[in-house]
Order: sequence, then C-alpha cells, then structure tokens
Amino acid sequence: MRQSHLFTKTRKEAPSDETSKNAQLLIRAGYVYKEMAGVYSYLPLGLRVLENIKQIIREEIHREGGQEMVMTALQEKELWEQTDRWDDSVVDIWFKTELKNGTELGLGITHEEPLTRIMTSYISSYRDLPQYAYQFQNKFRNETRAKSGIMRGREFLMKDLYDFSKNEAEHNEFYERIRGAYKRIFERVGIGDSTYVTFASGGIFSEFSEEFQTVSDAGEDLIYVDEEKGVALNKEVYTDAVIEKLGLDKSALVEKKSIEVGNIFHLGTKFSEPLGLQYTDEAGNKVPVYMGSYGLGPTRLMGTLVEVLADEKGIVWPESVAPFRVHLVGLNLDDAEIRDYAEGIYSALTTRGVTVLYDDRDVRPGEKFADSDLIGIPYRVVVSRKTKSEGIFEVVERATGEVHSLSEEELYQKYIPEAEE
Amino acid sequence: MRQSHLFTKTRKEAPSDETSKNAQLLIRAGYVYKEMAGVYSYLPLGLRVLENIKQIIREEIHREGGQEMVMTALQEKELWEQTDRWDDSVVDIWFKTELKNGTELGLGITHEEPLTRIMTSYISSYRDLPQYAYQFQNKFRNETRAKSGIMRGREFLMKDLYDFSKNEAEHNEFYERIRGAYKRIFERVGIGDSTYVTFASGGIFSEFSEEFQTVSDAGEDLIYVDEEKGVALNKEVYTDAVIEKLGLDKSALVEKKSIEVGNIFHLGTKFSEPLGLQYTDEAGNKVPVYMGSYGLGPTRLMGTLVEVLADEKGIVWPESVAPFRVHLVGLNLDDAEIRDYAEGIYSALTTRGVTVLYDDRDVRPGEKFADSDLIGIPYRVVVSRKTKSEGIFEVVERATGEVHSLSEEELYQKYIPEAEE
Repeated sequence: MRQSHLFTKTRKEAPSDETSKNAQLLIRAGYVYKEMAGVYSYLPLGLRVLENIKQIIREEIHREGGQEMVMTALQEKELWEQTDRWDDSVVDIWFKTELKNGTELGLGITHEEPLTRIMTSYISSYRDLPQYAYQFQNKFRNETRAKSGIMRGREFLMKDLYDFSKNEAEHNEFYERIRGAYKRIFERVGIGDSTYVTFASGGIFSEFSEEFQTVSDAGEDLIYVDEEKGVALNKEVYTDAVIEKLGLDKSALVEKKSIEVGNIFHLGTKFSEPLGLQYTDEAGNKVPVYMGSYGLGPTRLMGTLVEVLADEKGIVWPESVAPFRVHLVGLNLDDAEIRDYAEGIYSALTTRGVTVLYDDRDVRPGEKFADSDLIGIPYRVVVSRKTKSEGIFEVVERATGEVHSLSEEELYQKYIPEAEE
Repeated sequence: MRQSHLFTKTRKEAPSDETSKNAQLLIRAGYVYKEMAGVYSYLPLGLRVLENIKQIIREEIHREGGQEMVMTALQEKELWEQTDRWDDSVVDIWFKTELKNGTELGLGITHEEPLTRIMTSYISSYRDLPQYAYQFQNKFRNETRAKSGIMRGREFLMKDLYDFSKNEAEHNEFYERIRGAYKRIFERVGIGDSTYVTFASGGIFSEFSEEFQTVSDAGEDLIYVDEEKGVALNKEVYTDAVIEKLGLDKSALVEKKSIEVGNIFHLGTKFSEPLGLQYTDEAGNKVPVYMGSYGLGPTRLMGTLVEVLADEKGIVWPESVAPFRVHLVGLNLDDAEIRDYAEGIYSALTTRGVTVLYDDRDVRPGEKFADSDLIGIPYRVVVSRKTKSEGIFEVVERATGEVHSLSEEELYQKYIPEAEE
C-alpha cells in the first residue's frame, strides 16, 4: 500500500488523558483512535494487525476441532437470571438497555449462557458429543476504570471457545489440547518466552484455573514465577499450602507484574445444569453436559505486544502479526527517474507476494525514518538515488537495528523469502 | 467438513414466532439461531456464507480504493448532539445505556458522526483528499417490530463506506464508481437480474438518493420498475413530476414489492460542517469536506438470497456464497469397503481445493437427501456401493435439479474445476 493513500498519519501527541503506553503508541502511529476511555476504533493499520492475530488464533483452534460461529451482543434478562448472573449486585459490569416496550436487555459480557442454550437445540445424545464452538466477538464490560489502553476495554474483541463434553475425562483431554494450542499461539505472536502458564483460583469444579500471564510492568496482575520450571502462581493462590501442593519451592518464586493474555477454565456442569443441557448416555440415563471455557482477547494481545516489544523509538511488531512485512522508504522521489525505479521495486515486491507499505510521500527523509520506527514494520528497505546508482539495498531490521546490504536479487531471494498474502 | 462433526443439525420446525421465510429456512437448516426477535446468532454454516458475502463486497470496495477499518458500538451523546441526531424525538431507534458514573451512551445506529470526527485528526489539506473508508460492523436499531428475519435486525451486520472528497465533482466521480461496484456485487451473489437501481428521496444536497432494490414478495418496499431500462422508482418519489423529470413513461412502470439491499447517498457537508471537518484548499481557504455514504448489509443480503432463490425443498445458494461447493452424500457406509472408498473421494476433493460437506452420518438415505436439499449446497455428489461398482458418480445441481453422470476423473477435471479456498 502507498503511504500517501493511507488516510491515517502519525501524530506527535496522543490524547492527554491517555496514560497507557500501548494506546499512546498505537494512537500516535495511526493504528487506533480513542472514542472514549476503554473504547477504541481500529484504523486500517490496526485492523491489519488484529486480523493477523485472529488468523493465528483461528488456525490453532481449528487444529483442535473448534468450529467458528458468532453470537450476539444483545442478551435476554430471563436467560441470565437462570444462572443468577443478571442482577447488578452479582455481576457489576453489565451495560443494560431496553426495547421500546420496556423489556430489559443486556450487552453480552461473556457467552456461556447463550451458547449453552443454543446447544440444547443440538445436543441430546452421547453421539452428539463432544462439540467445540468458538467465536471472535465484541464483549461489553462497564468497567469503572479503563486506564490500560486497548488491554482493558469497555468494548473489546474476545475469542471465546467452549467445549461440551460427555464427562470430566473427555473435557480434560480437550483442556490439555487447548493449553497446548495457547502455548503455540503465544509462541507464534512472539511472546512465548515471557508468557507463563499460571495457576489461579478455580471454581466449584476444580481447585485451579490456569491463566497465561505475560511478564510486563504494564500488567495489572502480580504473579510468582518459577523460571526454571516455566510455571507461575497468581497472587490469589500464592500460599504455602498451594506452593507445597504444586511441588514448587518458595525460594525459587520471583514476583513479577504481568498481563493476563488468556485463560482456560473448567466449568463442569455449572451452566448445563441450570440451563437444562443434558444428553442421554449409552445406558439411557440423562446426564448434564460437562463444559470448559477458553478465553483469549485479540485486542488485549495486540496491546500486550506493544507493551512488551516496543522500544524508545516506537512499536516493534513481530513478523507474524505486522501490518506489512516491508516498509519501503523512497527518497529523492522528486527525481522522476528515481521515482520510476522505486515504483519498480515496489511492484516487484508486491508481485512476489510480499506485503509492502511504500512511503512515497513528499516529506523529508528524517520524518520518514522516524515514522517508520514509530510504525514498527519488521524490515525497512530504503530506495534512493544512492541505491539506484550502487545497486545495493540497505535493509534494516526494526527489532534489532541490524543493517544488511543486499543486491536487488538478494533482496528478493534471500532476505524476504516468505511469500505472504 | 464431516457432517457428523458439525454441531448443528437440521430441524423439522422453526420457532413458532418466526414468520419470515428466510429465518425459518435458515433456522431449520442450521445456519442461524434466533436469540430474540430481530437478533440472530450465526452458526458455523451461516458464518461461512456471511464471510463469503463479505469477501465479495470487500474485493469490490477495495478495487475502488476503500480502506477497511472498524469503529465501535458504544457512542458518545455529545458527538451526536452536534448533528442533532441524539434526541429520541429526532431519531427513535436508539438503544441507550450508561456508564457507572451516569454518563449516557448509545449503541451505534450508523457511523457518519464518529468517522467524520476521526477524519478531523487526519484531514487538513487538499493533499489529504479524497479518502475512502469502510467497515463491516454491527449496528443496533431499536425497531418496534422485527418480523423480517435476518433482513431487518435489531442487531445486524452492515458494510458502511464513506467518501471524503474535496468537492461535489470529486464526490460524484466516486459515487458513480460505487454504483458500479454495487452492481458487480449483486451480480456476483446471483441477484443481478432482479436488482434495480431505484430512485428514492434525497436530502439537502441532492434531489435523489439511489437504492438497490431486489424484487421479492418478502420485501417491505414498493417500487415501480421499468424493466426495459433497468431502473425503478421508490413509491416515495413516484409522482408524475418525477417520472417526467427522469424521462420515464408511466405506462411502462410496473409495481413490485422489493427488498432494499443497498443504498448510496450524497451527504454533502451535512456532517462535515457541524463537526468541523474542513481542509485548506489550493488557494488557502478553509472549506468543508464533501461526503457521501454507501450502505450494504451482508446479513440482509444473505436473507434476500434465501427469499429470492429458495424453492419448496429448501435453500438454494449461488456458488459464490455457498458454505461449501460440494455436498458429498455417502450411502452404505456401514460397509467398511464403501466407507474407505467414500473417504478416498472426500480426501481427493478436498486435496484439490474443493470445499466439501461430507455427509458421513449414520442416517437413512432419504433423510440425507432431504437435509441436502434443505441446506442448499450447489452440487450434490452421491458415493455408494453402486457408485463404487460402476465407477460412475451422480452429480445433482441443486438450483436446476439437473443430473450428470460422471467418471471419477470427470468429477475432478470437468465438473468441479474451480479450486476454492
């Protein structure tokens, strides 16, 4: 894409009420726009990153048999009353609204209830189980404070996956697979090393749930990490009894601030019992379906990547989620010959399937380089009079600052080998 | 995909309060689930159709330079007060809610206001224009009645595109291009022949807007069609004066019920003036930006396709949007040899890039054929003992009922040539 056509521009300042690093950088670089506290629009660059993140999640969830669907924001009071999660004294983050006739509605905070109800139309026999359904969908949560940028929104995107299993053993088997899928997802987006499976408090059906926590000073959580074993405990379960039970050594646990980037949860029959989701087993008995839920917020993950990977010059995207692979910076473009040459390189790269943001704007080189650092595309390639006369391209890796001098052929063959959409 | 794994099943009955044909069929076939009147979840089959429709729209809008982004549902009162579209006495379809601190919010009914505000951050000079931005995003409209299934939802998906132009001429040029893009979209989804560019009432900045109306008895609109000229008038502008002005002949106009599947609209400076979206022109003058808006609802379009193309046996999807290209119906699968053979055909088709729903369920042939008709996949291919012994495949076209007998090689080479997804 030509940068001169992109409707967003970089900005010197983020809104003065924006205190989080992730939103400050994303706003300044033109990825998101702040509508109000905790509510952000995703501009073309931001949507590209978000879609790349979603695609990685989708691939890993599909691999485990998840079926994608999409539920609604508008929610019926009667449904949530059946599980006692409607009243504001029980769940205090509802946004509520109403129909013309006065019927009260809520905006979905999560989707266990509606999906369990849907499944009562489709599950009746053991032959119908197990089933795995997930969605990417906006959640609405009426947070009193929303100061963590896109990491804690009042309206935000969530991937929520649910399993419907015959029994605990079948559920546990899927739970293990999703733990693995989540690990792969965090590896692929570039924060595998700093993300820990973290024990947290469970529910009626299990002593613990597990969270995926990414170490960051921007985090709202406090965890205790055993780096050698690669596990951690959330503060809420950091007791001598739990440490002993998990076979950990208190002296090896280091306190760190962290961001919860995902969680996996045993639900048991907490929702299937009140909502009447039963099946007939092999012996002819009616049995409640055994469930689990698996959350992962693509918008929060995007914010986390900014918090964890950015440097003093701006955002640093991993290749797997970057809005473009190459930032082609054209200099001396007022010279028609150089412009033609630069256009040719742009065209050659895109023809080879490389995603390119081509800075063809009429601004000074220093501004182009500063914008390029701020936007954070993995490979910057300069095309200029010098490049043309010497036939050598300077490629700078955004993450490391490493500079490589390549011929045109090397640029295509060696450096940017991976064809992408 | 294996039909035995799909969590949805066909149903004999739609909910008794569902009066629209589109929702009845889509619910019975397992495409959507009715949460409440005008609010539908999209199940795996339904989401596949919706994504195919979105992709066609996306391709045609990208071709005209549209940049995809996504805005929010939550809307600030102050913003909409500036254009006098907040008060319920002016706009009577708002869902309203509030923050913990009592601040009133609305759920976006459309997005002229927020996008115009966003653009004030990015447009300041004539060099920044024109710009074309669009999104696929859920709209919320508090309709008193919602009886048309997924064609008129209280929560529904909309593609809304906006242009930001220097002046009327620049805007008109884009408007013409989008009229063409819309025609291509309706052609590609299979309703080009029954969809008319229809004159409707305009606004301050133009005498007319244009709607795309698809002829259907399920429509809520009344239009007057000149079939020869391929144009129509909405009832609201069906006067002798207008007919004369447009050079039409009243005697050639035929009254029809129709569904509004899209609209294109001259906004002029209706939003840019109150919201202060100006640019500095070549002469140094501050000038309000000239705008247009272009709506097209993928969910309404999906419902329209069902209304217009379904027959007495069920849904009939055009190839371009069908959830799968081939419905592979396996019979005699209790015979291990036949099952292996059927699995081989399934595998061979999917390996060739054909999207296949493989009916591997343990149910009677009659039920499989009835379900297949209801679900409406374009090509049904039967694999059975007979197929195996004779080496001949029976391919039935869902739309026409035509039957073709093909060898295995012909099946791959001739009949299902187009590699997809």
